[in-house]
Amino acid sequence: MAIGKQQSGPLLPVPGVRQGVMEARIRYPNRKDLVVVELAEDSSVAGVFTRNAFCAAPVQIARQHLQQGHCRYLLINTGNANAGTGQKGKEQALACCEALAIATGVQVQDILPFSTGVIGEVLPVDRIRQGIPGALKALGDNNWQAAAEGIMTTDTRPKAESVSLVCGGQTVTITGIAKGAGMIKPDMATLLAFVFTDAMIPQPRLQLLLSQVVAYSFNRITVDGDTSTNDSCMLVATGKSGVDPYQQDPVFIDEFETCLGKLFTSLAMNIIRDAEGVTRFLQIEVINGRDSAECLAVAYTIAESPLVKTALFAADPNWGRILAAVGRAGIKDLDVDIINIDLGDTRLVTRGGLDASYTEAAGQTEMSRDEVTITVDLSRGEATEKVWTSDLSPEYVRINADYRS
Amino acid sequence: MAIGKQQSGPLLPVPGVRQGVMEARIRYPNRKDLVVVELAEDSSVAGVFTRNAFCAAPVQIARQHLQQGHCRYLLINTGNANAGTGQKGKEQALACCEALAIATGVQVQDILPFSTGVIGEVLPVDRIRQGIPGALKALGDNNWQAAAEGIMTTDTRPKAESVSLVCGGQTVTITGIAKGAGMIKPDMATLLAFVFTDAMIPQPRLQLLLSQVVAYSFNRITVDGDTSTNDSCMLVATGKSGVDPYQQDPVFIDEFETCLGKLFTSLAMNIIRDAEGVTRFLQIEVINGRDSAECLAVAYTIAESPLVKTALFAADPNWGRILAAVGRAGIKDLDVDIINIDLGDTRLVTRGGLDASYTEAAGQTEMSRDEVTITVDLSRGEATEKVWTSDLSPEYVRINADYRS
Repeated sequence: MAIGKQQSGPLLPVPGVRQGVMEARIRYPNRKDLVVVELAEDSSVAGVFTRNAFCAAPVQIARQHLQQGHCRYLLINTGNANAGTGQKGKEQALACCEALAIATGVQVQDILPFSTGVIGEVLPVDRIRQGIPGALKALGDNNWQAAAEGIMTTDTRPKAESVSLVCGGQTVTITGIAKGAGMIKPDMATLLAFVFTDAMIPQPRLQLLLSQVVAYSFNRITVDGDTSTNDSCMLVATGKSGVDPYQQDPVFIDEFETCLGKLFTSLAMNIIRDAEGVTRFLQIEVINGRDSAECLAVAYTIAESPLVKTALFAADPNWGRILAAVGRAGIKDLDVDIINIDLGDTRLVTRGGLDASYTEAAGQTEMSRDEVTITVDLSRGEATEKVWTSDLSPEYVRINADYRS
Repeated sequence: MAIGKQQSGPLLPVPGVRQGVMEARIRYPNRKDLVVVELAEDSSVAGVFTRNAFCAAPVQIARQHLQQGHCRYLLINTGNANAGTGQKGKEQALACCEALAIATGVQVQDILPFSTGVIGEVLPVDRIRQGIPGALKALGDNNWQAAAEGIMTTDTRPKAESVSLVCGGQTVTITGIAKGAGMIKPDMATLLAFVFTDAMIPQPRLQLLLSQVVAYSFNRITVDGDTSTNDSCMLVATGKSGVDPYQQDPVFIDEFETCLGKLFTSLAMNIIRDAEGVTRFLQIEVINGRDSAECLAVAYTIAESPLVKTALFAADPNWGRILAAVGRAGIKDLDVDIINIDLGDTRLVTRGGLDASYTEAAGQTEMSRDEVTITVDLSRGEATEKVWTSDLSPEYVRINADYRS
């Protein structure tokens, strides 16, 4: 069961982008599991991919095709990750690209494949091949909801979001979809996220922009510390609005980047709100560190501590566990006697010890919220980092003990 | 519920060591929770302590006293860790040492305090003071079983072990006790472990010996990656056997060190067999790495992956999760195409892909055992490391969601 709010506002078409969705029976019947996204010619496409050394076959192919081709189609399946499948897996990912290339009359390297689902099983290429005509037939400019559903695995609800901006009478639109609920600790990208805009942005700048926004959105969430083999995040700019934000005045550039950043962050946070077995959302902010690296080390050590996560599930303000996590984060010369910790608006720890005014009742109130915030003040610098995570519930264990059966 | 075998053979007295145990009502009634261990004059004492920056008050005091005094007593309580308690915590640990010093006529710095239990609560000094006379009255040379019980927290059974060796007609005895079930990823020592021998070993060598054996026993286990604030491991040599192993021939030195190492390893493994919520024991061996550090990085990434641990609970040979964990361990220039992985005696992965002869039935048989072994062959060097861990069950979540209530 997901928590909190889902998505904001209607999903907007992005000129130059069409989506088609099919039930291809890749793993289960009666389930949208194949998505084709068509991009206008001359779209700029930027991508970031998992850093897991065992990266999946489709990730290897997509990375190659992004370099070699002029991307015209994204081919996405759920139900099978085509990971840990070696040379054969790559051949199968290519075979799917070929089928779509033949059906649409583009080059095979103009197609980027993405897969998500169970690891280590053979990709049912025939079912994907058979599903492609139907997906192409279904192409339309506002199938976002179906597309977001068509990439889900253990997600309990689709994640999609839109925003639009006006620039000198012209409208620029951004719409994105994402999926992911477990095996989530993106390293350069989340499991699967696709964001589209009709802004006109040349590829090198688009790639830079993507790297920047991913760093503070998808790369700041963790469910279980398990970086997936299939993480991929794509940003597409079709140019159909005719507006190049970077040719506008600085105020618009700023507005565009802020909107894009908010959309990415919102998608990332919605992944945590729908994390496997989630009952509470946790934001961990580490402030006044010497540098970003040490803030992140502290934040992730707290975020991935099974003891902090089970206390969060129990709504137990077990501050000793937070303290112990800070203490084992491997920070050099950490002076624990100057650290302050807040739980929401409640001061928990002052100068390394329990705050004199703290009461267990106040702590419990903070920990009982759907969305809990822990702020750790290292009091030794000016760097700040923020990370989002979920609690660890018996349901998380159940889901992952059942996943393959 | 703990799994597997418990302890081997009878517990042997160690000349020069007496133990006394009391029910002091530190947290719960009707529970052995206060242990005093008396050491003969001129015993050598070596200790290693947690590297968690938030180390507990008793750890700070014990470390000081080990330097300054001539250790005569260990004062150990369960029910309260006296951690995260700041300056007041140190004063209270000292107050307990003083009470025991007065009762026994030794110096306060001749006493080492150890605490385990809930973090962040005020130590009930009065109850410990009141319990000391009874513990002293109970002093005897074979209260090992009661002492092992008297240091338990969420442990479901005591951990204690003895071994004896004969050297030129003289017998050397080693007996050790340990506790720990959660917040277990010792960094230099486990939660609490005390090992005693009547061998005659000068302190500097004893300290070196302790560091060596801890490295491959208590420092190779993890339940949840949560390094405790109170980890302490002590090795005491009373000298009462009159045998200095290091003055004997090399064969005996070797035999002594092997026996000591086995006893430490056995205690450490028994902590995992009784880990919180454990249903399966997992040994992860990483072989043919370039160095120890990369073998450990791979082993711990697997050992602490919630997805591997839940698959282990489900007896699911979900090899994709093992592969994904290896891939995200951060190993430089990792060539995944030369990696082999065995599950017990079954070859799972050959050269980075599923082995051709592997069957799901064979994998399931291996994963259904009480004690499962994963061997990862990195095929790029000669280093080897071994780590032990437990599975992640709904019971682990339940225990840690309930612990303070």
